[in-house]
Amino acid sequence: MTKPCADPTIAMRGGGYYSDNSINAKRVIDATTPLVEEALRGTVSRTSERPYAIADFGAADGGTSLELMRKIVRTLRTACPHRAITLTYTDLPYNDFSALFRRLHGVLHVADAAPLAQEPGVFTFASATSFHRQIFPDETLSFGFSASAMHWLSAKPGLIADHVHAIGATETERASYREQAISDWTAILLARARELVPGVRLVLANLCVDELGRYLGSTAVANLLDTLTQHWRALACANIITEDEYRAGTIQQYYKTVDDFVAPFTDPDSPVSRAGLRLEHVSTMLTPCPYAAQFRHRGDGDAFARAYVPHFRAWSESTFVGALNPRRPEAERAGIIDQFYRAYEADVAGRPEAHWADRVHGLQTIVKAL
Amino acid sequence: MTKPCADPTIAMRGGGYYSDNSINAKRVIDATTPLVEEALRGTVSRTSERPYAIADFGAADGGTSLELMRKIVRTLRTACPHRAITLTYTDLPYNDFSALFRRLHGVLHVADAAPLAQEPGVFTFASATSFHRQIFPDETLSFGFSASAMHWLSAKPGLIADHVHAIGATETERASYREQAISDWTAILLARARELVPGVRLVLANLCVDELGRYLGSTAVANLLDTLTQHWRALACANIITEDEYRAGTIQQYYKTVDDFVAPFTDPDSPVSRAGLRLEHVSTMLTPCPYAAQFRHRGDGDAFARAYVPHFRAWSESTFVGALNPRRPEAERAGIIDQFYRAYEADVAGRPEAHWADRVHGLQTIVKAL
Repeated sequence: MTKPCADPTIAMRGGGYYSDNSINAKRVIDATTPLVEEALRGTVSRTSERPYAIADFGAADGGTSLELMRKIVRTLRTACPHRAITLTYTDLPYNDFSALFRRLHGVLHVADAAPLAQEPGVFTFASATSFHRQIFPDETLSFGFSASAMHWLSAKPGLIADHVHAIGATETERASYREQAISDWTAILLARARELVPGVRLVLANLCVDELGRYLGSTAVANLLDTLTQHWRALACANIITEDEYRAGTIQQYYKTVDDFVAPFTDPDSPVSRAGLRLEHVSTMLTPCPYAAQFRHRGDGDAFARAYVPHFRAWSESTFVGALNPRRPEAERAGIIDQFYRAYEADVAGRPEAHWADRVHGLQTIVKAL
Repeated sequence: MTKPCADPTIAMRGGGYYSDNSINAKRVIDATTPLVEEALRGTVSRTSERPYAIADFGAADGGTSLELMRKIVRTLRTACPHRAITLTYTDLPYNDFSALFRRLHGVLHVADAAPLAQEPGVFTFASATSFHRQIFPDETLSFGFSASAMHWLSAKPGLIADHVHAIGATETERASYREQAISDWTAILLARARELVPGVRLVLANLCVDELGRYLGSTAVANLLDTLTQHWRALACANIITEDEYRAGTIQQYYKTVDDFVAPFTDPDSPVSRAGLRLEHVSTMLTPCPYAAQFRHRGDGDAFARAYVPHFRAWSESTFVGALNPRRPEAERAGIIDQFYRAYEADVAGRPEAHWADRVHGLQTIVKAL
């Protein structure tokens, strides 16, 4: 039995693989820079003797937000040159925190001459406490950031019988996923309300279903989540996995809508409003698939397939590994999972022009009232 | 090239192996409890609105200090029931932080019903910044603890040609190791002086050479470090490793004496004294080998050998792995290292009554002046 929120089946792939294969996730984060700079402007002026405490919630191995964090540090250095800055990266206990720290200290893959963790006056930390709970003591957080993380649910409200994702669930299945997501969203916000210093901000970029019904991968000819389902089902049809394993291939995610994000704020009597959180900014953003753009530029379908598949393998693999019967030998499980993603890769290589994965995010800036 | 203090050859073995095989290290920590309780009594009364911030410097996977940390939390809860407590575990970037967090969250090996990281009002963090540098912002630390860690040097001042440890070095070799250790000790203390809130304390249990010249493993018939050297040399004699690899088997440690620990405090003009640190307590402590005690009780030499060797393999293995030519295939390197420790194990099984490893520590309580 594992603890809630300490589930190996919802971990990003380790060893730095996640960020190495997530340039699209990095593009999203880079695109939030103006919102982040605006949010900081509102709070830097609030001088204090206490360290300026920054959190990246659901940071995986820290690679995709590294450039944004460097920018934040530069902005703060200019505004308050002598104030200590703490940078805390949070994720779940099955995250590869060792890869995170090696990256921050400049010793992952290649030596980094000026690692962020060794900047004077910058102090880096990690926490493995889920963002569904309070991570920092009351009123100690100066700025919170999160990207592509809060669509992960705190628990799996049942399996989705004939799809890998709530987006393709039956109405009944989807209702229970939505209920979990809505209750998680309130819990996430209430935890942040306790952590934030009054007057400071959160900037969130959450994967969503936008006003046009679009979501990650839905804009392509070959919808990413439907294609993933087809290839998973193909393994069941070929008796490579059992029907139980097929059903267990359920990703613990839900893409909220703008209405879902906004609801706790429009009701002045909601727990979130009463806790002092106010929504300052809300928008949606489509980030075009950088892998597909490279393919259109270079025209090499095989190279595209090899680069494209790892970008969702990084966050989906643990679900499918976890869906396999643990009594199968480890090598057999690894073989099945490799076969699964190789089949997807062959599919992409065979009709590269049909595959791309635009990311669709809901952006929010949230302030804790003074 | 690796950064200073980010060297894979000085990492404790991962996956929880370190603490699982370090009951002797845990005994040492348990024995510091009275000193720790005394140090807390002096500081708990200093009420504050800020979180009570505790650090465990050089914590490896956190297992050996877990019971002490629980006691500290209970003591603080009684003294100040509503104050938030932060617990930050520090080690180097090649430490297995994932194992640390899984242990704190109760999902390492077996499920823990009441994991420390999920105690209400307790917030757990990790840092991969070396304790040779400043880890926390100025005056934010309420209590610092460290056990069996600060004998690791920030850099290796050359190789020791014919021994694995400075304890068996030539006079010239040892002088450069001592110089490094003394300079590291000052740097460690100055970093802590900046971090500590005035009036609060550090409790340190550092491996040492005591007033009788004793050190870890020296009290046995088969001196641990000499025996390790013999088995390492045997691999060179049998041409299993090269002469260069033999020489590279140098553990990056130095056992300071009580005089070494005390020196920065007795000189009122030393940087450490000027930074406001005062030595409140100094003593040495010999912790009898718990593995040998079990052997005397049970009389099973083979079982003793199997339990005894992992307890130093946990902290020495990375040195010897790092000493091997990286051009050897990984499996070959692993095979040599296994052969090395198996030979030691056979040696122990052959004459179990000759082997034990009493730990010898210098204890210090240090206060930051108001």
